[in-house]
Amino acid sequence: MSDQSAVTVIGLGPMGRALAGAFVRAGLRTTVWNRTPGRDGELVELGAIRAGSPEEAVAASGLTVVCVVDQEAVGSVLRREAVTSALKGRTVVNLSASTPAKARDTAEWASVHGVRYLDGAIMTPIGTIGTPTAVLLHSGPKDLYQEHLPVLEALGGTHTHLGEDPGRAAAYEIALLDVFWTAMAGYAHALAVARAEGITARELAPFATGIGAILPPIFEELADGVDTGNYSGESNPITSAASSMAHIIDTSEGHGIDSGVMRAVEGLARRVIGTGHGTDGFIRVTDLLRAEAAVR
Amino acid sequence: MSDQSAVTVIGLGPMGRALAGAFVRAGLRTTVWNRTPGRDGELVELGAIRAGSPEEAVAASGLTVVCVVDQEAVGSVLRREAVTSALKGRTVVNLSASTPAKARDTAEWASVHGVRYLDGAIMTPIGTIGTPTAVLLHSGPKDLYQEHLPVLEALGGTHTHLGEDPGRAAAYEIALLDVFWTAMAGYAHALAVARAEGITARELAPFATGIGAILPPIFEELADGVDTGNYSGESNPITSAASSMAHIIDTSEGHGIDSGVMRAVEGLARRVIGTGHGTDGFIRVTDLLRAEAAVR
Repeated sequence: MSDQSAVTVIGLGPMGRALAGAFVRAGLRTTVWNRTPGRDGELVELGAIRAGSPEEAVAASGLTVVCVVDQEAVGSVLRREAVTSALKGRTVVNLSASTPAKARDTAEWASVHGVRYLDGAIMTPIGTIGTPTAVLLHSGPKDLYQEHLPVLEALGGTHTHLGEDPGRAAAYEIALLDVFWTAMAGYAHALAVARAEGITARELAPFATGIGAILPPIFEELADGVDTGNYSGESNPITSAASSMAHIIDTSEGHGIDSGVMRAVEGLARRVIGTGHGTDGFIRVTDLLRAEAAVR
Repeated sequence: MSDQSAVTVIGLGPMGRALAGAFVRAGLRTTVWNRTPGRDGELVELGAIRAGSPEEAVAASGLTVVCVVDQEAVGSVLRREAVTSALKGRTVVNLSASTPAKARDTAEWASVHGVRYLDGAIMTPIGTIGTPTAVLLHSGPKDLYQEHLPVLEALGGTHTHLGEDPGRAAAYEIALLDVFWTAMAGYAHALAVARAEGITARELAPFATGIGAILPPIFEELADGVDTGNYSGESNPITSAASSMAHIIDTSEGHGIDSGVMRAVEGLARRVIGTGHGTDGFIRVTDLLRAEAAVR
């Protein structure tokens, strides 16, 4: 059993500081370290302990939470003799952004060096940390997850263990960020089109918010069909979607607005139609994308 | 004042049938016509009146609601001598999908021929028609809108008059469909990536739903900044977004999955960074898209 009263946080960007702050506020002995100095002022005032080096930082606690920019940064901090030795027998929970492949690679390194390893992802904005709305995903050995969950729960919100495969949290993260950033691109483009039509963002926002609100039930409703290959387009065939997309492109480009993203989306819709599935719903695109993987 | 107890519906696709059904259920004398026969069976059983021709249909009511596939279809039904004559002095509410330019063109035709004209858009799925969750947008002369609102309210939901410019409803519609279809493309892609990683749509759905739920407050929060050119990326700079996007592309293409949409999104982010705005938020893309319009 690890010491449930101490934790180390490596990486003090905005998210790392939020994590460390939540641990301090939960009464945990919280040691912090960041490559670039000067980021820990407020945390130390709050009661965090400043470590002089990453090896000193990880040696201070049985559990180290890492939140740096990417897996290259994780490697540059942890994969050094002094730090790796200090981590032996201790646990790393890596909440840095990653790909599934890189998360598995870090897990492999950890395994080779006797470091206990969980890979996780934070799916909600910084402001949610320490509140009930935070969403954190975890993957790796389940017993290790359960052992450290009481400390991790200081971060608030909902924690979900997705499986033993250490790449699984990153796989979910990638898929969810895909939804998020693609939707954000749609919003940015919509705002550009609206502006060209003399509509302010403030005017469009309540309606855009309404569109955003219909997405979750649609995501939910389509899931079973996607798993079973049932892409019914009864109420909204992809031909109709493609026609809407053509209207969007026509209007955008008529204002000189780049519509490369929507052109790519329309291209997918037209290819589904071209393969004889025009009466299916747009979500059949999922299969088209994957079919290309199959013929590679 | 027009007769508030009669309405004609032209176009009996799934949405047109829903509109006509709501009018019949509200006790209005509802006349229906569709180019392809045989679509009105259930409606006639319900109490709708089948017209033998479009001119007969529009002559039956002071208000004709048109819901056909696009503006070309609107023209092919309405812009014929017999129909145009019958419409003189009557009102058309055109709820067919459109672009702002085509809506303005139809309004111009209506004006020339003494047809009173409102252009509208239905922003919610078919199932919402006749229920409180329907969202309908209207544009054109406000007094005309107010005159016919009591009948239109039989369609349920929220009706908003967006302005006198007949293209305004279509402009909102284009912008909102832009958000919707781009987000749907993100979901389809996310499902393809998840599947390649062994995650079912059913497994991903509750988390995708969570991401969908954070979009409306973010859309709302960003609006004022977009109107005033304040693109603060303090908690989430576009450099970080671009890094996430690179992870998505890397993982997708590593599975042989087409990531053309995300490549287009990443390209926009990288160009914002390349113009020296890397510390801003992703939403600055709105300006980039528009800046190109300005230099054209």
